[in-house]
Amino acid sequence: MPTDIEIARAVPLRPMPEIAAKLEIPEDALIPYGCDKAKIDAAFIAGLNGRENGHLILVTAISPTPAGEGKTTTTVGLGDGLSRLGKRAAICIREASLGPNFGMKGGAAGGGHAQIVPMEAMNLHFTGDFHAITSAHNLLAAMIDNHIYWGNSLEIDERRVTWKRVVDMNDRALRDIVVSLGGVKNGFPRQSGFDITVASEVMACLCLSRDLTELEDRLSRIIVAYRRDRSPVTCADIGAQGAMVVLLKDALQPNLVQTLEGTPAFVHGGPFANIAHGCNSVIATQTALKLADYVVTEAGFGADLGAEKFFDIKCRKAGLAPSAAVLVATVRALKMNGGVAKSDLGAENVAAVQKGCANLDRHIANTKAFGVPVVVAINHFTTDTEAEIEAIRQAARAQGVEAVLCTHWAEGGAGTLELAQKVANLCEGPSSFAPLYPDEMGLFDKIDTIARRIYHAGEVIADKTIRAQLREYEAAGYGDLPICMAKTQYSFSSDPQLLGAPEGHTLPIREVRLSAGAGFVVVICGEIMTMPGLPRHPAAEKIGLDGDGQITGLF
Amino acid sequence: MPTDIEIARAVPLRPMPEIAAKLEIPEDALIPYGCDKAKIDAAFIAGLNGRENGHLILVTAISPTPAGEGKTTTTVGLGDGLSRLGKRAAICIREASLGPNFGMKGGAAGGGHAQIVPMEAMNLHFTGDFHAITSAHNLLAAMIDNHIYWGNSLEIDERRVTWKRVVDMNDRALRDIVVSLGGVKNGFPRQSGFDITVASEVMACLCLSRDLTELEDRLSRIIVAYRRDRSPVTCADIGAQGAMVVLLKDALQPNLVQTLEGTPAFVHGGPFANIAHGCNSVIATQTALKLADYVVTEAGFGADLGAEKFFDIKCRKAGLAPSAAVLVATVRALKMNGGVAKSDLGAENVAAVQKGCANLDRHIANTKAFGVPVVVAINHFTTDTEAEIEAIRQAARAQGVEAVLCTHWAEGGAGTLELAQKVANLCEGPSSFAPLYPDEMGLFDKIDTIARRIYHAGEVIADKTIRAQLREYEAAGYGDLPICMAKTQYSFSSDPQLLGAPEGHTLPIREVRLSAGAGFVVVICGEIMTMPGLPRHPAAEKIGLDGDGQITGLF
Repeated sequence: MPTDIEIARAVPLRPMPEIAAKLEIPEDALIPYGCDKAKIDAAFIAGLNGRENGHLILVTAISPTPAGEGKTTTTVGLGDGLSRLGKRAAICIREASLGPNFGMKGGAAGGGHAQIVPMEAMNLHFTGDFHAITSAHNLLAAMIDNHIYWGNSLEIDERRVTWKRVVDMNDRALRDIVVSLGGVKNGFPRQSGFDITVASEVMACLCLSRDLTELEDRLSRIIVAYRRDRSPVTCADIGAQGAMVVLLKDALQPNLVQTLEGTPAFVHGGPFANIAHGCNSVIATQTALKLADYVVTEAGFGADLGAEKFFDIKCRKAGLAPSAAVLVATVRALKMNGGVAKSDLGAENVAAVQKGCANLDRHIANTKAFGVPVVVAINHFTTDTEAEIEAIRQAARAQGVEAVLCTHWAEGGAGTLELAQKVANLCEGPSSFAPLYPDEMGLFDKIDTIARRIYHAGEVIADKTIRAQLREYEAAGYGDLPICMAKTQYSFSSDPQLLGAPEGHTLPIREVRLSAGAGFVVVICGEIMTMPGLPRHPAAEKIGLDGDGQITGLF
Repeated sequence: MPTDIEIARAVPLRPMPEIAAKLEIPEDALIPYGCDKAKIDAAFIAGLNGRENGHLILVTAISPTPAGEGKTTTTVGLGDGLSRLGKRAAICIREASLGPNFGMKGGAAGGGHAQIVPMEAMNLHFTGDFHAITSAHNLLAAMIDNHIYWGNSLEIDERRVTWKRVVDMNDRALRDIVVSLGGVKNGFPRQSGFDITVASEVMACLCLSRDLTELEDRLSRIIVAYRRDRSPVTCADIGAQGAMVVLLKDALQPNLVQTLEGTPAFVHGGPFANIAHGCNSVIATQTALKLADYVVTEAGFGADLGAEKFFDIKCRKAGLAPSAAVLVATVRALKMNGGVAKSDLGAENVAAVQKGCANLDRHIANTKAFGVPVVVAINHFTTDTEAEIEAIRQAARAQGVEAVLCTHWAEGGAGTLELAQKVANLCEGPSSFAPLYPDEMGLFDKIDTIARRIYHAGEVIADKTIRAQLREYEAAGYGDLPICMAKTQYSFSSDPQLLGAPEGHTLPIREVRLSAGAGFVVVICGEIMTMPGLPRHPAAEKIGLDGDGQITGLF
C-alpha cells in the first residue's frame, strides 16, 4: 500500500497557469512561488468585487476521536468529485504550522488519493505567510519593550503587558520566561513568554480581513497591555500597525495550489481552532466564491466547535451564507463514541455504531439549527462492514438527512461522485443561514446560548471576576462581539472523556480574553495550550534528505 | 533630486528569464519568487561543476566613517560598467537583515543610479532565506532544551548551553533572559538569550557550504553545549542536522535579481561581518564564477576586516583566487580619517585628504600583501574639488596603483567605464593570491600575524585563560581553522577613535569562541553586539502603506 507521500510524488503537477485558468484567473494575476504554488494578486482580487458568489459548502465532522475522521480528505475528495461532475469547483483549507511537524510527523493535506500538493512545501515554509506573521507579531512586541525602555510615556504597567512573542516551533522552554535581564541597557525585567505562531492574534486578524485597510484597522485595535488604572494600550498607541501591515502585505494574498486531480485549492491562513476561529482566511474564501460555482471549505475540530465558530464568527463577519454542510463520520469514530476502545475497532460492532450515532445526531441537529442543509459523508475504511455503514445511514435518515458512502481515500474524486451530486442538489434547494445569536445579545447570554443549544449543557459556571470582566468588555463597547469558545474538541462537554452526546452537564468558564483586533471574546473552558512541547523522540530526529535529495521522515 | 526609491521605482524591471539569459541560465533552472526574483535550481548548479571560473573581483574600502564610502554602490556601478563594456558580468552581494530596517531606515542595495532591485522585497522577506535560517536555528535550540527535559542522557551542563535562540528583529529585551520557568512541565530554568539571525552560526554555515551535503556536515559539527567535564555536545549529538538541512534546502539556492541596468545580481547570504566573515555565500559566488566572465563582490566593513576575512576565510575554504581588488575611497571619508569633523566636510581641505590617505595607503599595501592587484575607486560626491581628487590620485600613484574617479551614483554604469576597463586589464595581468597565514600555523600566531601585518599593532594582549582556551582548541583538533576577527571597523586598532593609520598599538583579546560548524575561531577585541536595540523613535513608527498601496518610510 503506497503512503500518502508516495501517491503524491507519483502524480505530475500541472502548471499553475493551467490550474488558474480553471477559475479564469489570468496568468498575470499569479505571483509564482516556485513552479507549483502562486499567490493571487491583490489588485485582481479587488477587481472581483461586485461579482456574484458561488455556493459555499462547509465540511465539518462529528466529535474527533483518535480513530480519525478524515475531514480534510473529504474536503479534498468532494472538491475533486464536484470537478468530475463538470462543476467549477475550488477548495479552501488552512495552511499547516511549521513547528509541530518536528514534533509529531507532519501531515498531508488530505490523504490517499484525495490530497492537496505540493505536500513538502506546505509542511515547510510554503509561501512564507507564517514567517511574515511571526515577524509582524514580534515587531510589535519589540516596540512595546522599546517604548517602556525609552521612558514609557504611555504609562504601561509592566506587569500587565499581555502581548507575548511568538515562534513557529514547539518549544516548551519559551512558555514562561523573564526578559530584559542584564541591567540598565536591556530594559526592565518582567515575566513573559512565547506562544506558537498560529495562536497569534495577528494570525486571526489576517484571516478575518478582506483587504489591507481592514487588516490595518484590526491590527490597530489589538490590546497589548494595560495601565495601572486598567485602561488598555493598543497597537495603534505603540504605532506599529503600519510597519506590521507592510510585513503582511504579501501574506494577505491567498495561495493557490492544486489537488492530485487538478482542482484549484486555496490554502491560506491558519488560526488556532481553540483561542481563534480555526478556518481558512476570509479573503481566500471570498476570492474562491467569486471565481468558482462551488467552494468547499472546512473548519477545525468537530462541528460543535468548528462549525459553530465558522458560522458565528467567520460567516457573520464576512457576510457569508453557506449553502450546505457536509458532516463527516466514520464507522470507527462512531464506535469510539459508542464506547469501544481504539484497540477493538477492527471487529464489527453494529450496536456500538448505533450508540455512537447519538453524537452524529446532535451534530446534525446543531448544523440544521443554523439553517444550513446537511448531508452526512461516511468516510470509508476497509474494515467497515455493510451492516455498520447501514446503521449510520439509518441514523441519518431518522434525522431527515442522507448519509453517503465515500471512497475518495482509495479512489479520489471518483469516490465522491454521489456525495458531490447530493451536495450540488442541496445547493439548489433553500438555505436560510442565520447565526446562532444576534450581535446585540449580552456576552454572557451568548456563551449561555452556545452552551445550552450546541453543547446541551445544563448550566454555565463563571465566578464573579469573570462575569465582571464580561460586563467591563460590554461597558468598553465590545458587547457586540461574537464569542470564540476554547473547549476540548473531544466532547460536547468540557470533559474530554465524556463521548457520545452528554446532556445537562456543567460548563465551567476558567477565563475570558478580549481579542479586540480579531474581534471576538475568547471564552476558555479548561486547559488551553498555546505553546506545545516536543515529544521524547521528536520527528525531527528522523527528518532528513535521502541520497536523491528527497525529504524523508517529514510525513 | 530623486531619492533612491524614486529612482528605483521609475525603472521598469526586466523579466527574470531575460536576466538569466545573460548568463545562459535556462528558464527551467529558475525558481520564480514573484516576477522579479528567482532562485537558481540546485541541480543546474551541480551541473556547472568542472566549468572554468571567471574572474573574481573584490570591492573593499578604506576604514568606514560616518561620511560613508559607497562600497555596495561601487560594486553595483562596476558590474554595470563591465556590462556596458560588453563583458559578461555578474554581481554578488549579501542579503539585508529584516529586523534592523525597523530601527533605522532600511537601505537600498547600492544607491542613486547604481542599485539592485526590487528594493522593497530585498528589505523585507525577500525569498525567505533568513526566515529559514531562523527556523533551523531555533529548532536546534528547542531540541536541546527538549533533550534536557526528557532525561538529559547526553549529560549537558545546563549552565553551559552555548546555543542561544535567534530572531530577525532588533529586540534588546531578548538579549538576556531566563527560560523554562513555570514548573516541572516547562523544563529546567536556565539563563539564555536571543541573538539577531545574521549572527547565527547556521548563517555562517550556509554561507560557506557548496552544497547540501557540506551544509549538513557543517551543521553537524556545531558545538551547542558542554558537559561538566567540559567535553562538547554537538548538533549531531542532538540529532537536529537532518531536519535543519531540510529547512534550509531552498535557502541554500542562490537568489537572482537585477541592477537598474539589467546586470544579473546574486543576492545571497548575510553573515555578520564581526563574529562571522561578512561575505556573499560561497555557493552564489561559485555559481556566478561558472556563469560570468567577471564577478564583482564585496566584503563587510573596511579592508582590514572585510578583505582579510574574505581572503583568509571565504577564499581559503572555497578555493577561490581573486583576480583583482577595488578599494573604494571618498574625499569625505579620507578627510575624516585626516581629522576633519563630519560637520566640516563641506569645505575643501586638501591637506586633510592627504593626511587621511595614510589610511588608504595601508589598505592598499595590505591588499597587495595577499598577492591581489589593486585599483582605487574614488566614489564621487558633488562637493569634492578637483584638488582633493588629485590628492587621492597622487597618494595611490605613490603606492604604484591607479585611482579612478567614478560617478556611478549619478550616472550608473556610464560613470564607471574607466574603472571597469582598468579592472578588466588587471584581470588579464598576473595575480598570485595567497592567504596571509598557512592552516598549520598555531592559533595565537595567526592572530598575531593578522594584528601585526594588517593592523600594524605592536602587541597582542591575551590573558592566560584565553591562551589556554586556544591551546585547548588546538588539542581538540581545531588548530588548522582560520581566525575570524571581531574588532571595531572604524580603526586599524581596537579603539574606534583612532582613525588614519595607527602604528604600534596594543590589540587586547577579550574572548575567543569556537565556531566549529562554520569552521573558524572568533577572536573578540572589544564590545560586540549580537542583538541590537531599537532607537527612541524606531523607523517602524513611520513605515506604512500609502493610498496607492506603496510602501512608505522603509527607505
